[in-house]
Amino acid sequence: MKAVEDGWTTVGIQTKDGVILAAEKKIQNKLQIPSSLEKIMKIDDTVICTYSGLLSDARALIENARVEAANHWFTFNERMPVESISLSICDVALSFADKDSKKDKEKRKVSRPFGVALLLAGIDRNGQPRLFRNDPSGNYTRYKACSIGAGGENGMNTLQEFYKNEMSFDDAILLAGKVIKENMEQKINKDNIEISYIRSDNKTIVRLTPEELEVLIPRF
Amino acid sequence: MKAVEDGWTTVGIQTKDGVILAAEKKIQNKLQIPSSLEKIMKIDDTVICTYSGLLSDARALIENARVEAANHWFTFNERMPVESISLSICDVALSFADKDSKKDKEKRKVSRPFGVALLLAGIDRNGQPRLFRNDPSGNYTRYKACSIGAGGENGMNTLQEFYKNEMSFDDAILLAGKVIKENMEQKINKDNIEISYIRSDNKTIVRLTPEELEVLIPRF
Amino acid sequence: MKAVEDGWTTVGIQTKDGVILAAEKKIQNKLQIPSSLEKIMKIDDTVICTYSGLLSDARALIENARVEAANHWFTFNERMPVESISLSICDVALSFADKDSKKDKEKRKVSRPFGVALLLAGIDRNGQPRLFRNDPSGNYTRYKACSIGAGGENGMNTLQEFYKNEMSFDDAILLAGKVIKENMEQKINKDNIEISYIRSDNKTIVRLTPEELEVLIPRF
Amino acid sequence: MKAVEDGWTTVGIQTKDGVILAAEKKIQNKLQIPSSLEKIMKIDDTVICTYSGLLSDARALIENARVEAANHWFTFNERMPVESISLSICDVALSFADKDSKKDKEKRKVSRPFGVALLLAGIDRNGQPRLFRNDPSGNYTRYKACSIGAGGENGMNTLQEFYKNEMSFDDAILLAGKVIKENMEQKINKDNIEISYIRSDNKTIVRLTPEELEVLIPRF
Amino acid sequence: MKAVEDGWTTVGIQTKDGVILAAEKKIQNKLQIPSSLEKIMKIDDTVICTYSGLLSDARALIENARVEAANHWFTFNERMPVESISLSICDVALSFADKDSKKDKEKRKVSRPFGVALLLAGIDRNGQPRLFRNDPSGNYTRYKACSIGAGGENGMNTLQEFYKNEMSFDDAILLAGKVIKENMEQKINKDNIEISYIRSDNKTIVRLTPEELEVLIPRF
Amino acid sequence: MKAVEDGWTTVGIQTKDGVILAAEKKIQNKLQIPSSLEKIMKIDDTVICTYSGLLSDARALIENARVEAANHWFTFNERMPVESISLSICDVALSFADKDSKKDKEKRKVSRPFGVALLLAGIDRNGQPRLFRNDPSGNYTRYKACSIGAGGENGMNTLQEFYKNEMSFDDAILLAGKVIKENMEQKINKDNIEISYIRSDNKTIVRLTPEELEVLIPRF
Amino acid sequence: MKAVEDGWTTVGIQTKDGVILAAEKKIQNKLQIPSSLEKIMKIDDTVICTYSGLLSDARALIENARVEAANHWFTFNERMPVESISLSICDVALSFADKDSKKDKEKRKVSRPFGVALLLAGIDRNGQPRLFRNDPSGNYTRYKACSIGAGGENGMNTLQEFYKNEMSFDDAILLAGKVIKENMEQKINKDNIEISYIRSDNKTIVRLTPEELEVLIPRF
Repeated sequence: MKAVEDGWTTVGIQTKDGVILAAEKKIQNKLQIPSSLEKIMKIDDTVICTYSGLLSDARALIENARVEAANHWFTFNERMPVESISLSICDVALSFADKDSKKDKEKRKVSRPFGVALLLAGIDRNGQPRLFRNDPSGNYTRYKACSIGAGGENGMNTLQEFYKNEMSFDDAILLAGKVIKENMEQKINKDNIEISYIRSDNKTIVRLTPEELEVLIPRF
Repeated sequence: MKAVEDGWTTVGIQTKDGVILAAEKKIQNKLQIPSSLEKIMKIDDTVICTYSGLLSDARALIENARVEAANHWFTFNERMPVESISLSICDVALSFADKDSKKDKEKRKVSRPFGVALLLAGIDRNGQPRLFRNDPSGNYTRYKACSIGAGGENGMNTLQEFYKNEMSFDDAILLAGKVIKENMEQKINKDNIEISYIRSDNKTIVRLTPEELEVLIPRF
Repeated sequence: MKAVEDGWTTVGIQTKDGVILAAEKKIQNKLQIPSSLEKIMKIDDTVICTYSGLLSDARALIENARVEAANHWFTFNERMPVESISLSICDVALSFADKDSKKDKEKRKVSRPFGVALLLAGIDRNGQPRLFRNDPSGNYTRYKACSIGAGGENGMNTLQEFYKNEMSFDDAILLAGKVIKENMEQKINKDNIEISYIRSDNKTIVRLTPEELEVLIPRF
Repeated sequence: MKAVEDGWTTVGIQTKDGVILAAEKKIQNKLQIPSSLEKIMKIDDTVICTYSGLLSDARALIENARVEAANHWFTFNERMPVESISLSICDVALSFADKDSKKDKEKRKVSRPFGVALLLAGIDRNGQPRLFRNDPSGNYTRYKACSIGAGGENGMNTLQEFYKNEMSFDDAILLAGKVIKENMEQKINKDNIEISYIRSDNKTIVRLTPEELEVLIPRF
Repeated sequence: MKAVEDGWTTVGIQTKDGVILAAEKKIQNKLQIPSSLEKIMKIDDTVICTYSGLLSDARALIENARVEAANHWFTFNERMPVESISLSICDVALSFADKDSKKDKEKRKVSRPFGVALLLAGIDRNGQPRLFRNDPSGNYTRYKACSIGAGGENGMNTLQEFYKNEMSFDDAILLAGKVIKENMEQKINKDNIEISYIRSDNKTIVRLTPEELEVLIPRF
Repeated sequence: MKAVEDGWTTVGIQTKDGVILAAEKKIQNKLQIPSSLEKIMKIDDTVICTYSGLLSDARALIENARVEAANHWFTFNERMPVESISLSICDVALSFADKDSKKDKEKRKVSRPFGVALLLAGIDRNGQPRLFRNDPSGNYTRYKACSIGAGGENGMNTLQEFYKNEMSFDDAILLAGKVIKENMEQKINKDNIEISYIRSDNKTIVRLTPEELEVLIPRF
Repeated sequence: MKAVEDGWTTVGIQTKDGVILAAEKKIQNKLQIPSSLEKIMKIDDTVICTYSGLLSDARALIENARVEAANHWFTFNERMPVESISLSICDVALSFADKDSKKDKEKRKVSRPFGVALLLAGIDRNGQPRLFRNDPSGNYTRYKACSIGAGGENGMNTLQEFYKNEMSFDDAILLAGKVIKENMEQKINKDNIEISYIRSDNKTIVRLTPEELEVLIPRF
């Protein structure tokens, strides 16, 4: 878990109206172009993902999840459920992706834990929001709200204090921003935070623009 | 066995009328969604399973058992006996699943003990209840009642004291609950215990709902 | 040999009228179902086997012996001699099962001693009783009577004292029981000893029932 | 990163009119023929690249990028975007080049960080200049101006001080030269610096000749 | 050579009339059936072999020699010369059995010395007796008389003292027995020594029976 | 580089009229036949090569270069440029010879630096002389004059002092001899130095005979 | 080189009339049959070889040389030149025997020096005598006279003192014997020295018989 805790802070919140992911972006130099430091990736049309830990492992897992989701679409002509995507990520983490039993066993013996934790957020076909946390150990659990990474423990406390089952989607966005803001090393600004969300009604991935973030940040 | 004893507590009880599995669910955070922490899995229509130890090893063994059971159904057009499923799990644990002799020998040399113990409960075609314990060493033994995991030793004592060959199925459910309740760290509630059973007469897997558990818990 | 000496006690006796195997069954809990702890396995219609040591290695060797014996039957239409079965077990232990010379050599370099000793008892086609001891080193030797496992050394002394070339078959069964009884940790009862035998005349494997054992035990 | 910091100094600058790469050439002996020490390589008709660190790793990555860019051209009949080239370099660094998922996983387990950092500069089809930095860890980030290698940190400071979003292309060339000049061990001359650029308008790779450099050096 | 010197004592003697092998049999228990402890094995109709050291290595080498001798018979329709058999044993010991040059080289790199020394005795087609010693190093040498194993050095001294080029075959048998007798731990008797010989005239392998040995032992 | 610096001294000089290679021959014993100690090898009809360091690595690289040059001839019906040969040697040193990208990557991970440096001298199709130095690191650089090996550093100083761009070919031969003479352990004679050259005009490899050397040595 | 210097002494001498090889035979026991300790082996009808060092490596190299020489004969219908045989031995030692370039490179990485030095003596088709020394490093050099092994250094001194370019063949045989005699541990006799030679005129391998040696030894 060390690689994960050494990373930056990310947070995911689910309300009845949708799911939100937010992540800290560590800007090390003003000559960097912030938009090239993307922390929230799209997996499927209604599923997004953020991570904390090793980039290489995150990319391996996310690339795999994208392929699985696309295959599901081609095979069944319907979106892959978020939980199934989460399970397929675990399967890779457990060297389980390949269901052929002999290969499985051989792989199992040489696999190592992935140095990354993921937050997976999406809306299922029936409009149900879903938020999953995938651990390096290959475990996944559904959460109403979850924070991982460098400030994950503090973030979890904040979430337990302020999260309410019936909170409005806008309040949830502000809470996500608050968790990031309180747990990042740099002072928060429109370039070092990234927030994306999907609402249950229109099932569309929305990324807040720097301009929108600039307006929201004082309210975090 | 360490990985197993560091786990949570699980219990299995067999009476003349059916088999019961119960398991502790460790809820670490109120934002987790308890139903996503499933500890009792279905292997076949009349066989269920719980485990204590490493999730990854448990999933490997259970996935394999499901495939074996399904193959049996397709090949022989009848349910696979519970003991045969237990044997097939041992075969994997002993790197024995593949009966081809050359492969066997090579695998045997590199295999390692599985870091998981399983309780396998089911009803055979003739309506006979069966309860098996699969050890990390690849051994399996039939039990009338068995408890494994963190509180397994204490649970075993409780079972030896209270188990009766002719006890009623309802009393057996209460005894299973009692073993879990007495051996879990958290205070028992409807979210941190899971109980499933199969009766010999209708051969149907029944999972107690949180509501049913809430009613039963005071009687444990 | 350590794994073998840490095991339980087993004994084999050959007389002119047949062969007997007896083994201690370690019952660790009254909730275990004793019949699921089988220590004497059938290899062929007139050959049985018991072991002391690692279950996984024993199963590998016995499974292999069964296949060899079955192949012999199909190929030659006659029972495989007990000594040939013993030799085939040694061949596996010496990574010799595969007679293809190149493979042999490669395997030989990576093989390790098997952590199990076996007693193999059977009646040959001509009615001759045969008792073999297979060592972890891959050696096998014919014995008139032999005891291996935790109490093997003591058992050997008892056998040397009481074994007589012309003893009756019934006396031999009692002697086998006596060796087990004197070398087990628990008090002997009908559930923690297993005795099987094959007589030269009818060439049938007979397992003593708990009821028969209950009658015999006081005479050990 | 050590191999990279032990290298020489390189710099890349992007303005609205194009991209510039400059690199120090370590001449160890006057009998060496300077033109044979090329530090800025062409990847595609409108993409160039320089590096700091291990030659062998740089050549592996650049050779791969060339093949990817050529394949893109043949497949899509259009230039590969600079960011896609940068991504493909990361994919190799993360052992990701092969999208076949099974191979991926196997490779991922044995890969090691590349001992080289790259600056990738190019003009996209739409005339947009792009500058990317590829780290040994497999990360890539867009920069407006970036300096890597032995004098990379100092160079970064100089760039932060003097880089202006609206600076002229000629000033940017002088700034690139200045960063190299201030961070090289030897005294700068026409043979130990290499500068190449691509302007957005004509999309042509231009390498400054020793004669042109001789004129420019006093102005750095 | 350690494994060899820790073994038991064996001796081979060649006279103009034939070759003799003798070996100590370590009987550890009176319930063992001595005839199952065979130390002198047949390789071909006129070639026998004994060994000192690891059984597994001895069996690998002897099994290989038998196959080579049988192949020679089938291919050339004549007995394989004893020296050729000795050479083929060395080839295996040197990982040389496979004459395909590429394989050879690869094997050579991973081979290890065999933990066994062999005495090979036979009569060639022309009636010539031959005695070879095969060392763990893969060397073989012709001897008139040779002793290897635990008492090999003492036995060699005895042989040098008493061996005569023109000694009678009967005297040579007595000398072989004397070497074994003087170098074994247990008191010699008809069950713990094994003597086989082949005479040049009838080219038949003769094993002395316990009865014949009983008569000879007092004369050793 | 250690293996290279422990070697003997070699030198290469390029003038407008051709290229010269010279190398020290370490004669250890007057019974050695000097002509069997060849240090300057032909790669192609107009390309020669000398080395300092491990013979085995030098032979691997030179053998490969010969094959590449021959393939080039057969494929393109023209001589391979000297720089291309030098590049192909680097490719091998960098495990790059095989352009297939997947193989490349795998090889790259296990390759090690070659323990040899090479001087490659040749005349291109257009009559241009070319001199390249290939380092163990897989780098190559064009030189006007270069000395490598045990006395390489001293030789380099001598070359920097006496080399002139417009020196005559005969003077260059004398300078090459001078560098070797000053940096060898033994006293120079016709048997312990080897000089070969190719002139731009006739493009023919010429090896100085011991007789020619005897005449030239006093002038070095 | 250690394995070589720990060996016995061998010597080779070439005169205008032929080549001679001589080797010490270490007789450890009077019961050994000296003729079975052959130190000079035939490679081809006019090429012989002796060695000092590890038997297993010597046999690998010699076996390979025999195959190469035989292949040459079948392919070109003429004897393989001695230098080509020497080169092919080096190729094996350098893991170069397989000219396929990819294999080569892989092998090169895992090869180890051979623990043996060889003296190769032969007569070429044109009647020219040739003597080569093959070192463990994979180097080979032509010598007029050469001594390797335990007494190799002393032998070399003796050879340098007494070898004359125009010495008679008989004197050369005596000199070879003298080198062996002066450098062996045991007192020289007809059984512990082996001398073979090939004369340029009749191109026939001649091995001196013990009787011939007995006559010559006093003259060494």
